[in-house]
Amino acid sequence: MEKTSSLVHFCFISCLVFFIFAASWYHPSNSSSPDNSLQTTWRTFKNRIFSTSVLETRVQKSIDHAAETPHHPLDPLTAQEINSVRSILSSYEPFASTFPIIHSLTLDEPDKLEVLRWRKGGRFPPRKASVLAMLNGESHVLTVDLDSSRVTSHAVNPRSGYPMLSVEDILAASKVPFSNAEFNKSIAARGISLSELICLTPFAGWFGPNEEGKRIIKVLCFSSEGTPNFYMRPIEGLVMTVDLDTLEVLKFSDTGRGIPIPNSTNTDYRYNAHEKEPEMEPINPISMEQPEGPSFKVEDGHMVKWANWVFHLKADQRAGLVISRAMVRDSENGELRNVMYKGFSSELFVPYMDLEESWYFKSFMDAGEFGLGMSALPLVPLNDCPRYSYYMDGVFAASNGKPYVQPNMICLFERYAGDISWRHSESQLLDSQIRETRPKVTLVARMAATVGNYDYIFDWEFQTDGLIRIKVGLSGLLMVKGSPYHSLYQVPNQDAMSGPFISENVIGVVHDHFITFHLDMDIDGVNNSFVDVKLVKEHSLPGESPRKSYLKTKRKIAKTEKDAQIKLKLYDPSEFHMINPSRRSRLGNPTGYKIVPGGTAASLLDHDDPPQLRSAFSNNQVTPLSFLCLDSKFLHTLLSHFVEQIWVTLYNKSEQWAGGLLAYQSRGDDTLAVWSERDRPIENKDVVLWYTLGFHHIPCQEDFPVMPVVTSGFELKPVNFFERNPILRAAPAFEKDLPVCRPGASA
Amino acid sequence: MEKTSSLVHFCFISCLVFFIFAASWYHPSNSSSPDNSLQTTWRTFKNRIFSTSVLETRVQKSIDHAAETPHHPLDPLTAQEINSVRSILSSYEPFASTFPIIHSLTLDEPDKLEVLRWRKGGRFPPRKASVLAMLNGESHVLTVDLDSSRVTSHAVNPRSGYPMLSVEDILAASKVPFSNAEFNKSIAARGISLSELICLTPFAGWFGPNEEGKRIIKVLCFSSEGTPNFYMRPIEGLVMTVDLDTLEVLKFSDTGRGIPIPNSTNTDYRYNAHEKEPEMEPINPISMEQPEGPSFKVEDGHMVKWANWVFHLKADQRAGLVISRAMVRDSENGELRNVMYKGFSSELFVPYMDLEESWYFKSFMDAGEFGLGMSALPLVPLNDCPRYSYYMDGVFAASNGKPYVQPNMICLFERYAGDISWRHSESQLLDSQIRETRPKVTLVARMAATVGNYDYIFDWEFQTDGLIRIKVGLSGLLMVKGSPYHSLYQVPNQDAMSGPFISENVIGVVHDHFITFHLDMDIDGVNNSFVDVKLVKEHSLPGESPRKSYLKTKRKIAKTEKDAQIKLKLYDPSEFHMINPSRRSRLGNPTGYKIVPGGTAASLLDHDDPPQLRSAFSNNQVTPLSFLCLDSKFLHTLLSHFVEQIWVTLYNKSEQWAGGLLAYQSRGDDTLAVWSERDRPIENKDVVLWYTLGFHHIPCQEDFPVMPVVTSGFELKPVNFFERNPILRAAPAFEKDLPVCRPGASA
Repeated sequence: MEKTSSLVHFCFISCLVFFIFAASWYHPSNSSSPDNSLQTTWRTFKNRIFSTSVLETRVQKSIDHAAETPHHPLDPLTAQEINSVRSILSSYEPFASTFPIIHSLTLDEPDKLEVLRWRKGGRFPPRKASVLAMLNGESHVLTVDLDSSRVTSHAVNPRSGYPMLSVEDILAASKVPFSNAEFNKSIAARGISLSELICLTPFAGWFGPNEEGKRIIKVLCFSSEGTPNFYMRPIEGLVMTVDLDTLEVLKFSDTGRGIPIPNSTNTDYRYNAHEKEPEMEPINPISMEQPEGPSFKVEDGHMVKWANWVFHLKADQRAGLVISRAMVRDSENGELRNVMYKGFSSELFVPYMDLEESWYFKSFMDAGEFGLGMSALPLVPLNDCPRYSYYMDGVFAASNGKPYVQPNMICLFERYAGDISWRHSESQLLDSQIRETRPKVTLVARMAATVGNYDYIFDWEFQTDGLIRIKVGLSGLLMVKGSPYHSLYQVPNQDAMSGPFISENVIGVVHDHFITFHLDMDIDGVNNSFVDVKLVKEHSLPGESPRKSYLKTKRKIAKTEKDAQIKLKLYDPSEFHMINPSRRSRLGNPTGYKIVPGGTAASLLDHDDPPQLRSAFSNNQVTPLSFLCLDSKFLHTLLSHFVEQIWVTLYNKSEQWAGGLLAYQSRGDDTLAVWSERDRPIENKDVVLWYTLGFHHIPCQEDFPVMPVVTSGFELKPVNFFERNPILRAAPAFEKDLPVCRPGASA
Repeated sequence: MEKTSSLVHFCFISCLVFFIFAASWYHPSNSSSPDNSLQTTWRTFKNRIFSTSVLETRVQKSIDHAAETPHHPLDPLTAQEINSVRSILSSYEPFASTFPIIHSLTLDEPDKLEVLRWRKGGRFPPRKASVLAMLNGESHVLTVDLDSSRVTSHAVNPRSGYPMLSVEDILAASKVPFSNAEFNKSIAARGISLSELICLTPFAGWFGPNEEGKRIIKVLCFSSEGTPNFYMRPIEGLVMTVDLDTLEVLKFSDTGRGIPIPNSTNTDYRYNAHEKEPEMEPINPISMEQPEGPSFKVEDGHMVKWANWVFHLKADQRAGLVISRAMVRDSENGELRNVMYKGFSSELFVPYMDLEESWYFKSFMDAGEFGLGMSALPLVPLNDCPRYSYYMDGVFAASNGKPYVQPNMICLFERYAGDISWRHSESQLLDSQIRETRPKVTLVARMAATVGNYDYIFDWEFQTDGLIRIKVGLSGLLMVKGSPYHSLYQVPNQDAMSGPFISENVIGVVHDHFITFHLDMDIDGVNNSFVDVKLVKEHSLPGESPRKSYLKTKRKIAKTEKDAQIKLKLYDPSEFHMINPSRRSRLGNPTGYKIVPGGTAASLLDHDDPPQLRSAFSNNQVTPLSFLCLDSKFLHTLLSHFVEQIWVTLYNKSEQWAGGLLAYQSRGDDTLAVWSERDRPIENKDVVLWYTLGFHHIPCQEDFPVMPVVTSGFELKPVNFFERNPILRAAPAFEKDLPVCRPGASA
């Protein structure tokens, strides 16, 4: 009886389902919607969690998603369209007896040229859906045409790997260990109450032939006794390997019996849990104020217009936030010019640096395994985003094919941070002194994905000078390891630890984060070239100059994809330009944008290490192969250039996900590295730029119990795109225009 | 007659004197001061320029600098003290007949231990001045004791190089070419009216034996016809080499007769010069509002207190902005803990990449040759710094030894940019969802130095989590080269150009910027150790794990200075920690800060290239020597490790300036590279960390006629310094606390 009730308890509290739950409650504004189709799979659960108060400062008009219709060819599938796809699939013959589990159901974007041809009010390209589903252990990849109400393509197990995890998968797997005698024995032996147990299942990976031919998941548990921050209380060394389809425990491993569960002291990070204030002088209220309102408009739900920018913004279950059709107005002639067709975070690879049985498999591919959009919980007004932010919801399909709303998933706001756009002071002239300075105001589109323990903040920031800055902030809770030792004072061999102590009995395991962005640049049109503008050291000739050395730029246009596999080098510097060779400025320079790298950490894992094989990052060594059971020609191809920080590939609508369409347990046969290895010609073609932002993370005490945000980013910056500084004529700020403010109600 | 009047005109408009003029007007609040000692050298000039309106939004109480007294041992010399030093020097026997030209007159800071011992209200360490002066072509380095009214040390020509340029130097040199027949002939031949001529003299350098034994300056001219942006109108190829002491023209070079002066079209960047608005939607007013005022205090003129930070802030004629005694309060126990004894930009090296006769010498050392503080013109309220900024003046000595005020030179403001301090969302728990997010508010100290054409914005940003971010923004006007060709379409050999076309007949010459920061870290006390925490790739043993490779941290404590000559490597990554080995956390980790690199461009110039010899930056190759006339042992020492991005040296009060105390025409015998080469022991000692921020700049059309700001920076971040996240208990933002605003007067 005790066991049964615990199991019931467990079912409710223990696994990723709640994580997805929370992300899938009804939109408050829709709770009275007459269209029940917006209710989710999870409506039957009684203890469904509803949010309160997160919308309290939201002033924008709420959208009735049930009544929404698409206004742009790139608009995501509406709730009605998702319902239509479900109906079409229900009557599709192969699924007639059993409706499959829907792992992904999104817009199959029309061909680029159709989108580019489309004008507002014109005929819409056909609306199609791309569906990833599982049935009887097999992956189904389908295209559904909404206009003709037909399935127009259907492939079964097209390649290695599976769709991202469904809620059903997670829920089913997380029940398994509780009926496992060894597990219960181990939990009892450790003196842990089942009621405080939180088990998580977001662990997969692929590690060679032993784990092929079946869907595998790992299950790990934590204690939530005395804290909501159970991540700091791992039950170390206890790990179950479960077959997701047969629900068998393939392997039970319990190596951590001597390791205490770390104490809950100081782990609670909630504001209400703290009585004492921190030892610092209070900070007076400060706010970015815009009493006349923000200057941007969001038209038809997705078209953002601000200053000189126009772009399409949408939520995506896998990528999170997608920017499309980004265009900037030429400040001279008013022409709206193409910059980027599509930009999004394509994959997020997080390998941990510990080989032990309960750790080696922790090498996440967060976008392809869990979905960044799926993981994006509602943003908290005033804290995640400033006042005057506009919030955008996601409308996604649940695993039964029904639509649900992920509210406040993206925010959009204008930012003035006290920064300067340009300045010059001049005092060399007689008749006037010059003090010309322009404040910098930008537009930010933000999303925060909470992939289990980690929080990733994605910012796309647009500047009036044409620059786009893409930043990723890391926060949240560390994935920690229990240690038999209390502190460093007890440790016999510090070198054997996989990370530093960050609390008593808690080790912060060293890990990396690599975020690969898909950047389909279309500078002034679809056909672009990628140019490596090298800075090369030259020497003067004898007697030529008192100087001995200088730098010279050497431009090298990438002819094929391999020419554009770029490993950044500090001592062999380059600028990397995407240019339109067919459009030149009045001075003869091709119009272009450059990518300004940042967050340049590179993966140092062996290229034939399984996690590395599956993720497009690396060093470019070639070393001998070992156990991998792939054919050697393929592997040779795959490994010979294993992943740089910058890549350029020929545009191919199907090559969106750097880790492959089916990333879960994939073997690396559908990655960016494989596509690039085809070495297609890319000069003056429609090409895609890929950039990987990297972080090495050696944890420290300050990361406990919740990490201060660490941010890095890169920029896309106009280079000879404009005829001159596009904000030369921008106005300075004047006192008379600024708001008149008084202290808030509580002052 | 025509010539004479032009010469007079030239005297007023043509040279750096006005630049320094503008920086030395009376402080408005002091213009009625009874103490005339605050008037400057330049009061006799009739056409002295006064500022208007820059202070219009300044609400803080203005300071009567004439009456100021020091409150802290590190406070800069007051106007009264500067006057005292001048009196002492006037009656000093060697200067009895002729008062020298004062090139620098600043506080000689007391010994560190005296400063650390000092408590408010306690006895002051003796006040001393450090003076650099020139007399009869000789450099004088003096110490003046204000308490005893005596010169306590005096060295003449202690090493190669001279003090930074004085206004007298510049004024005298800039008159020389006008009485030169060749110059006048050349100007006339080009059809240039002397009245539109602007000649500048900020070009020096040192290029081997031909330029030793005398002070050299180069003079270049520009046309201001039709534009205040004369920098875009170079009279290419015309350069005079002048002996600063004899005022002889040593060399006249005129190689650019076929090169037209670029057109003035579109070069004016002043707001009032533009009638047309840019082609973009207007941006509504936006402002960081704090109706209850900012939360920081500035006590006794220099002590800044904000949130958990306390530091001493002052203006310096050479470094610009100096942060001293930075301490952060421990959020757990309230202890005020030492972080950094002193931090400032020590040198700024800008080599241009063109070997031609009129270009090769352009390799500036802006701090040591011109002074970043000397070049810091008043900040523009609302545009350079947000509302609610506090402005701090500089009080400096003019070349006659009299004090003058450089107003509004530094601003201090709180910043909320819509960023997040930390966050986590949690939905895995039954009883509550968690949405915890904390907005990020920081404190920024800013200065903008306009060193001729370029503007450098220096930001020191303090975070409540203990992080210090140091950023440099580059803006202003490029140093451009006239081209005989109109555009790329006419150029026979693009490779022969030293940069791209950025306007008609205008080439933006490729150049670098390297800013070296002196960071005297004193983590929890003066004795610290520098640790290279390497991330090393390790391989698993056969059968040990399905994983093949992982990263492991290896800590290496630098024993001597050479161990801490660090060249950053992307594929051999490390964290660099400054720790206090005597103070450990409860877990046994030493308390520390790490330096988080950014702006990692490295200089690629040959280490024996003269500009490189003088500046501490580099690659670390050793190549054979050529023409340099230095003794070989010294050169071997100097070149064997020629300058990394990170250095750590033993603390030595005299080692403040990375390019040497006497940087002007120095030969590199007193640089950071030389000090470090002594290889002193640095483990658990009082040490100084040096970091070089680098930018490679390939100009583009967008940089014309004024450059949008390019920013880079690095961070000093606590690592096991706090027992846990120090802002764990910080409060979120609440709607009720925020200001209530209405549109400004003009709405």
